Amino acid sequence: MNRCLGVCYYPEHWPENQWAEDASRMAELGLTYVRIGEFAWSRLEPQRGLYDFDWLKRAIDTLHNAGLKVVLGTPTATPPKWLVDEMPDMLPVGADGTRRGFGSRRHYDFSHDGYLEECKRITLALAKAFGAHPGVLAWQTDNEYDCHNTTLSYSPAAREGFQAWLQRKYQSPEALNRAWGNVFWSMEIADFSQIELPNLTVTEANPAHVMDFRRYASDMVVRFNKAQADIIRTYSPGRDVIHNFMGRTLTFEHFAVGADLDISSWDSYPLGFLEDRSDRGDAWKRKFARAGDPDFQAFHHDLYRATSKGRWWVMEQQPGPVNWAPHNPAPRDGMVRLWSWEAFAHGAETVSYFRWRQAPFAQEQMHAGLLRPDSVEAEGFAEAAQVAAEIKTLNAELSANAGKADVAIVFDYASAWAWEIQPQGREFDYFRLVFDIYRSMRKLGLSVDFVPASAADLVGYKLVSIPGLFAWNEELVEAIRCHDGVVLIGPRSGSKTADFTIPENLPPSLPTDIIDVTVSRVESLRADMPVAAREGGGFQFWREFLQPGPGTEVIATTEDGVAAWVANGTRHYLGGWPDEDLMAHILTRLAGHSGIAVTTLPDGVRLRRHGAHVFAFNYGNDSFDLASIGWNDTPLMGELTLAPSGVAVMPASGIKAT
Amino acid sequence: MNRCLGVCYYPEHWPENQWAEDASRMAELGLTYVRIGEFAWSRLEPQRGLYDFDWLKRAIDTLHNAGLKVVLGTPTATPPKWLVDEMPDMLPVGADGTRRGFGSRRHYDFSHDGYLEECKRITLALAKAFGAHPGVLAWQTDNEYDCHNTTLSYSPAAREGFQAWLQRKYQSPEALNRAWGNVFWSMEIADFSQIELPNLTVTEANPAHVMDFRRYASDMVVRFNKAQADIIRTYSPGRDVIHNFMGRTLTFEHFAVGADLDISSWDSYPLGFLEDRSDRGDAWKRKFARAGDPDFQAFHHDLYRATSKGRWWVMEQQPGPVNWAPHNPAPRDGMVRLWSWEAFAHGAETVSYFRWRQAPFAQEQMHAGLLRPDSVEAEGFAEAAQVAAEIKTLNAELSANAGKADVAIVFDYASAWAWEIQPQGREFDYFRLVFDIYRSMRKLGLSVDFVPASAADLVGYKLVSIPGLFAWNEELVEAIRCHDGVVLIGPRSGSKTADFTIPENLPPSLPTDIIDVTVSRVESLRADMPVAAREGGGFQFWREFLQPGPGTEVIATTEDGVAAWVANGTRHYLGGWPDEDLMAHILTRLAGHSGIAVTTLPDGVRLRRHGAHVFAFNYGNDSFDLASIGWNDTPLMGELTLAPSGVAVMPASGIKAT
Amino acid sequence: MNRCLGVCYYPEHWPENQWAEDASRMAELGLTYVRIGEFAWSRLEPQRGLYDFDWLKRAIDTLHNAGLKVVLGTPTATPPKWLVDEMPDMLPVGADGTRRGFGSRRHYDFSHDGYLEECKRITLALAKAFGAHPGVLAWQTDNEYDCHNTTLSYSPAAREGFQAWLQRKYQSPEALNRAWGNVFWSMEIADFSQIELPNLTVTEANPAHVMDFRRYASDMVVRFNKAQADIIRTYSPGRDVIHNFMGRTLTFEHFAVGADLDISSWDSYPLGFLEDRSDRGDAWKRKFARAGDPDFQAFHHDLYRATSKGRWWVMEQQPGPVNWAPHNPAPRDGMVRLWSWEAFAHGAETVSYFRWRQAPFAQEQMHAGLLRPDSVEAEGFAEAAQVAAEIKTLNAELSANAGKADVAIVFDYASAWAWEIQPQGREFDYFRLVFDIYRSMRKLGLSVDFVPASAADLVGYKLVSIPGLFAWNEELVEAIRCHDGVVLIGPRSGSKTADFTIPENLPPSLPTDIIDVTVSRVESLRADMPVAAREGGGFQFWREFLQPGPGTEVIATTEDGVAAWVANGTRHYLGGWPDEDLMAHILTRLAGHSGIAVTTLPDGVRLRRHGAHVFAFNYGNDSFDLASIGWNDTPLMGELTLAPSGVAVMPASGIKAT
Repeated sequence: MNRCLGVCYYPEHWPENQWAEDASRMAELGLTYVRIGEFAWSRLEPQRGLYDFDWLKRAIDTLHNAGLKVVLGTPTATPPKWLVDEMPDMLPVGADGTRRGFGSRRHYDFSHDGYLEECKRITLALAKAFGAHPGVLAWQTDNEYDCHNTTLSYSPAAREGFQAWLQRKYQSPEALNRAWGNVFWSMEIADFSQIELPNLTVTEANPAHVMDFRRYASDMVVRFNKAQADIIRTYSPGRDVIHNFMGRTLTFEHFAVGADLDISSWDSYPLGFLEDRSDRGDAWKRKFARAGDPDFQAFHHDLYRATSKGRWWVMEQQPGPVNWAPHNPAPRDGMVRLWSWEAFAHGAETVSYFRWRQAPFAQEQMHAGLLRPDSVEAEGFAEAAQVAAEIKTLNAELSANAGKADVAIVFDYASAWAWEIQPQGREFDYFRLVFDIYRSMRKLGLSVDFVPASAADLVGYKLVSIPGLFAWNEELVEAIRCHDGVVLIGPRSGSKTADFTIPENLPPSLPTDIIDVTVSRVESLRADMPVAAREGGGFQFWREFLQPGPGTEVIATTEDGVAAWVANGTRHYLGGWPDEDLMAHILTRLAGHSGIAVTTLPDGVRLRRHGAHVFAFNYGNDSFDLASIGWNDTPLMGELTLAPSGVAVMPASGIKAT
Repeated sequence: MNRCLGVCYYPEHWPENQWAEDASRMAELGLTYVRIGEFAWSRLEPQRGLYDFDWLKRAIDTLHNAGLKVVLGTPTATPPKWLVDEMPDMLPVGADGTRRGFGSRRHYDFSHDGYLEECKRITLALAKAFGAHPGVLAWQTDNEYDCHNTTLSYSPAAREGFQAWLQRKYQSPEALNRAWGNVFWSMEIADFSQIELPNLTVTEANPAHVMDFRRYASDMVVRFNKAQADIIRTYSPGRDVIHNFMGRTLTFEHFAVGADLDISSWDSYPLGFLEDRSDRGDAWKRKFARAGDPDFQAFHHDLYRATSKGRWWVMEQQPGPVNWAPHNPAPRDGMVRLWSWEAFAHGAETVSYFRWRQAPFAQEQMHAGLLRPDSVEAEGFAEAAQVAAEIKTLNAELSANAGKADVAIVFDYASAWAWEIQPQGREFDYFRLVFDIYRSMRKLGLSVDFVPASAADLVGYKLVSIPGLFAWNEELVEAIRCHDGVVLIGPRSGSKTADFTIPENLPPSLPTDIIDVTVSRVESLRADMPVAAREGGGFQFWREFLQPGPGTEVIATTEDGVAAWVANGTRHYLGGWPDEDLMAHILTRLAGHSGIAVTTLPDGVRLRRHGAHVFAFNYGNDSFDLASIGWNDTPLMGELTLAPSGVAVMPASGIKAT
Repeated sequence: MNRCLGVCYYPEHWPENQWAEDASRMAELGLTYVRIGEFAWSRLEPQRGLYDFDWLKRAIDTLHNAGLKVVLGTPTATPPKWLVDEMPDMLPVGADGTRRGFGSRRHYDFSHDGYLEECKRITLALAKAFGAHPGVLAWQTDNEYDCHNTTLSYSPAAREGFQAWLQRKYQSPEALNRAWGNVFWSMEIADFSQIELPNLTVTEANPAHVMDFRRYASDMVVRFNKAQADIIRTYSPGRDVIHNFMGRTLTFEHFAVGADLDISSWDSYPLGFLEDRSDRGDAWKRKFARAGDPDFQAFHHDLYRATSKGRWWVMEQQPGPVNWAPHNPAPRDGMVRLWSWEAFAHGAETVSYFRWRQAPFAQEQMHAGLLRPDSVEAEGFAEAAQVAAEIKTLNAELSANAGKADVAIVFDYASAWAWEIQPQGREFDYFRLVFDIYRSMRKLGLSVDFVPASAADLVGYKLVSIPGLFAWNEELVEAIRCHDGVVLIGPRSGSKTADFTIPENLPPSLPTDIIDVTVSRVESLRADMPVAAREGGGFQFWREFLQPGPGTEVIATTEDGVAAWVANGTRHYLGGWPDEDLMAHILTRLAGHSGIAVTTLPDGVRLRRHGAHVFAFNYGNDSFDLASIGWNDTPLMGELTLAPSGVAVMPASGIKAT
């Protein structure tokens, strides 16, 4: 497969007489795909039923005639004013009970059936009009689900939908009361119509109540997306259906949305995400302020590769300073190229820059594009051009299958909701825990796959990590039982039933043939009071008191004498949140058991295996000598001395184990 | 009197066939009391008027048959859904004007007359049904008034109630306008119906307005509690009426609620309170993370001992990690025992653990019990068993009257409201001030009593401290005049009239025969700019400029030459908030005047005199040699080398003054 | 002109039999003006239409008979309860959509036509009654516009007013859509009635939308003020119309309000403002806790001197500890005098203390006055008396015209709104930027004038700074073109059009004959990652990448090689926010070009030229030797060794350039 570049373009923002030149410059730059249309509802249907698709047809024709392929977006993230005025109760309601207003974007409630019908109507009209257009090669549904925290709405529509959803799930109020434990605090209901949304309670609501509401809200996103995907598939056969996910967004089940897509994509803004969504402190943020967190992009590349069975894009790639983070510095020279190459190294089919030309007006006017507002090339332009040229020279290498990684992490959205609902300690955050483990793996030079907890396929992985899993499902337990590699379970995995209760046999609640251990007690820890491990490092934030059963080996104890890491053959259970030192120790030891070679890397340097080749990336501020980790041949691209922002590619055969 | 242990139990949470074994294990453990029923409304009355008391009778019978004594709770902290749906305006309204919802607990408005009637109805039904049951030895009214900040509600019901309350108090709008100073900013009203609640104003409301609202809200709590207590007394004569107060909860007049109780109790969660309700910084919180603040429990023991004339319990004692603080570490081994003994040393009749078995479901599923969810003994169980055994051996010593302390602090809830309403400096907090003084006394080895400001009885105290008192009342002034011990008044005491105005003769507004001093000016201080005192240490947060009258002696001045501590014989006035060093200096000097021996203790070690015995407790992380403070005999319990979590008891005769 | 002292007085707060003595003591103290009446509506009109002006007449007569001059305030900042009850929709609505309540002050919506009519009615009644009274020499309109953030209200009245305002401005929805760029995110409207207020949107609203709302809101303040001023001018001819502005208040166009006044005044609370409104950190706040920020008062003196063409007062001067800041320390001895003198040195006609006597009741009972509540002189009294005496001795010097400063800063309220709406970096704040530059000038001993961006008159200034200007207007561009002094433009100046879009020719968007430079890219910087300049120091928070055109000289580059400071002859453009070191370097160099002598001063010492004299003020905690900066004669007032809180005056002839 050829790797492609793309760009996001808004013909409705520019005079029509500029379109042809824009298209010609895009083609000349080496772009293949152009995403358009996703915010244009007010232009596509200025009044109810009055469709104006002519301009869009001319825009698509213009791009098509320039040899470009169009990704056409449905405009449902920006319902126009006349529509909102027709059904004002389609607007979402915040947890504080306040209805939000028109005037930005994503002002809709996923639970609102009336709005869903409107979305189906406009999608149908577009799909009928453009589904067979030869220039339209793919579709994007809506835009960035949950952006601006829009998955959850506390509206009457959500309440009614939730009640119906619960009725389907539990059949009787008695079953719901029992499952939730509503006898506690007299929360029992006698009828599903008595169910309230879990906001505005005097103190925390029942976690089982909140958990079901989170599941319901996720289902509404899935429903919303599927309604559009189904229409597109009917009227635009053969085209790829895509949605663009976001970074560190966990409010809906991406695997389920992904199941209705051909391609998962995501919007990668390394500098904005570092400033806005990183758990790291100021020193780290300053160090990587112009490069981004060295693991954040890769994490999402690997995660979204899993949500659509391998096919994935970067739909929006940061090309320069953005506008929405607390601080918006310029990327270091070369980073736009590095980010692009890193995506390809993780298997992306296409990397698409956001956006072609910086808009001089409205909310995102300070967001850089490949072109300045005056159409002069901005800094990112030349880096995109370089990537376009380099893709061609590495075409053969990239078309090979990236292959399975040695290591897998089981990732589960429901677990993120569970620990947000009831963290038990301020720092307990599912993403942070998984990301810590992912980073530790990457610091050892490993490539990583993610697999979903439901229907988990662990076959072929030498080492599997299952951290922080809310609740087991039978398939995953069976997959562990059948797995012949090393499995590292915990901390906190299996500590609840699906009903958000403590399992009868206590966590981790695994069959004793897998591992016989009981979590007798847990504690959450102040950040300043880690519990030291005898192996060095220790546990932070979270620690469990393990009681190993007969035949279970204690691998490590904490300095206060509590069993902290136990194993039954290749099945390991870890009773705490390891700090960096302890995690490195654990992974190195398990990698040794698994026959995986590790390479300790500095904070800013990362490797990624792709088929028979290995990519190296330097996010750091200092050069790194790849020879020091065994690279002993001339790279296919780049130099052995990997400068800051540098990218290098080497056949695996040119790397000696260190 | 025999000291007892107890436990909180929820039969409705467990299969009925488990009750007998639970009861038997409780008895075997050495427990005497079992509190039940306080959240069970939805099971006691599943629909309006359809009472189902049979299960409760069987539960009481089961416990009674095992030799246990039941404390029966009224379930009014958790009104069921059908009741809330009948009268949705019983839900409280936040200061932001938003009505709170059903789905947790304490979702009621103290001002709502309709809900009050419902509470009387269910209390009456329960009291009639169980008031004469031989197994029911005491009652608990509701549960934890004000928990989750529920004293204040800004509802229409509160507004109407407040208007009527003001009409009774002031009789005429003119009198109210005059008392409040409503001429300021044209806030005058012409009719009581014009009175608004003091929320949602553009800037701060009139402090006199807020103060009366706080008084009204407190009165509503008193009314609510009394309504239940009266019914119980009628239908369950001879049983003790108890309520369980909370830590650092100041929104209602506990002395007034206590006057309607036989026994004050409180819910003591040392680790949760340290994390959540301490003014101390991270170093302190880390140091005592597994022990709790060394003075927080004792403070409340002493305070609530005063609210019901000496009879008091710990109704809920933390037995292990809890679920509700920012971090929830496990107690250090021995601390559950220490906390229990400390309560007895301060005069508790009963210490009751919360809860018997950890619930595997709903909001508190991560709150430890004496048993794990699988009924295996949790860590706290053995410590409770140890206490049960030890009580018996010390029975004679404990049955003696604890006796009056040498030192008393006048404590006043209205003062807490006043300084919250108008602190004048960000750090000025009544609890913090009193607690600082209390801690300083305890660091000198002193035992302390609290006395209410109203009808204060100072007889017999060698040293009385009256810090931060909002406004004088005649009885207290007279008590000071008649008192023959040392009195330390201030800072800020007497700085207002009861109408929340500055007194005509300026603070401290005492008759000149008591002490002739004028506070000419006050200032609040940044935390980083204390004012040094010539005696060492200095004033933090708050400082007054004192003008002593003729015959008033200046004891100390600040380094900038302002009179800071003055006296008229044994009556002292202190013009600032002393830091630890200065407070130690002041107290040591006054103790000298008073003939009280002091013993300087490290941060983690505390003493408590009980009758003819002295208890020592070690909250610290290091052992402490009691011989170094004059213990020169073999302790009745414990060792002279007091290990961390250690408890020791010595007859006063075995202690030599140091 | 004679400089005067005044005081704020509330006869309605005190027994009438006290008025005459108060007046007599005021006169004896040396006061000239007494402001009264501004919060007295409930006493002036206790019921609708029932005016009670007799007491006010007696109060004015009493003051007049004592030789005092009255400033009479309109009471419109405190509408009484009966009026609010008549039209409850006059209450303002917060950005959260919640209606605010009665019970404090400023509880009105500037957009509410009904309330505007009521204000005209009461103003008319007062103007007719007292306009010709010989004791009334001036009027104050309302009180402290925007205090408590009251400029913006999100009410239905505001929405209707805004829609009409937009219709007048844009004439057609199409023109508005085009100007705002509403095609972005489908925000287009078809009718002005579809316009919403820009609150409660899901994410940020269109900045052009918010900007117009801010302009509208400012216009409403101007309209409100003008309505009163017009009535007063008609019925009280010859009297000065004054309003009292606040510190760091930028929500409305003070130049426009000032155009309808005879005298701008402001309320100067140095200690409160330091604690509450300073960007500086704790060390600075502690250092100046008893003195105030050394530049904050001067900044506002200079700014408000510009808003009414030179005539200005301090209407409320802090006389001791206030009540509203996080901490309220006492001023250092001498500071009340220093603040008074500093105002005169900057050209104030009158300095009026707030307030005569500390009120013992209501919200401000902890705010010091010249008298204590018991009428004893408070600390500020003696300092006011000293100033009163000193004014007389310096009468000749002060009556001279203060003269134009060498240096001017262009100040623009719209720019403050623009960067608040879209800062692009967390720290970007217009006031902070301008204040940083102002402080740098003052640290070099310079006196500064402010000029408005609209109709800017730059004639006569040797050095003009135009920082952070949102958008150019033709007059200002022409003024720069004609100016023969040095002009320093930037950072970020001219980066938008008035429609809040990026200019077609990119910032700074100046005609190339003025300076030919393009801002190609900008970045906002974390506070911990300044960009170093080769000249020392560097840029913080904000940095631009400059592309100089032909003939444009690069004066300085950053260490990473980006052009950062460019010039075309005397027109300079600065591409970043300089830190203190770099700003001092830039200003020193430009002062050299401009022929201005500079004197480097320590943090706490400031100079101000007034006519042929120079004043020196010592805010610092150490004495300063004025001889070290060339003062080589005996000061007219004060000493060459300028003690803390010291003031000294020297003829310019007595100062040698250093």
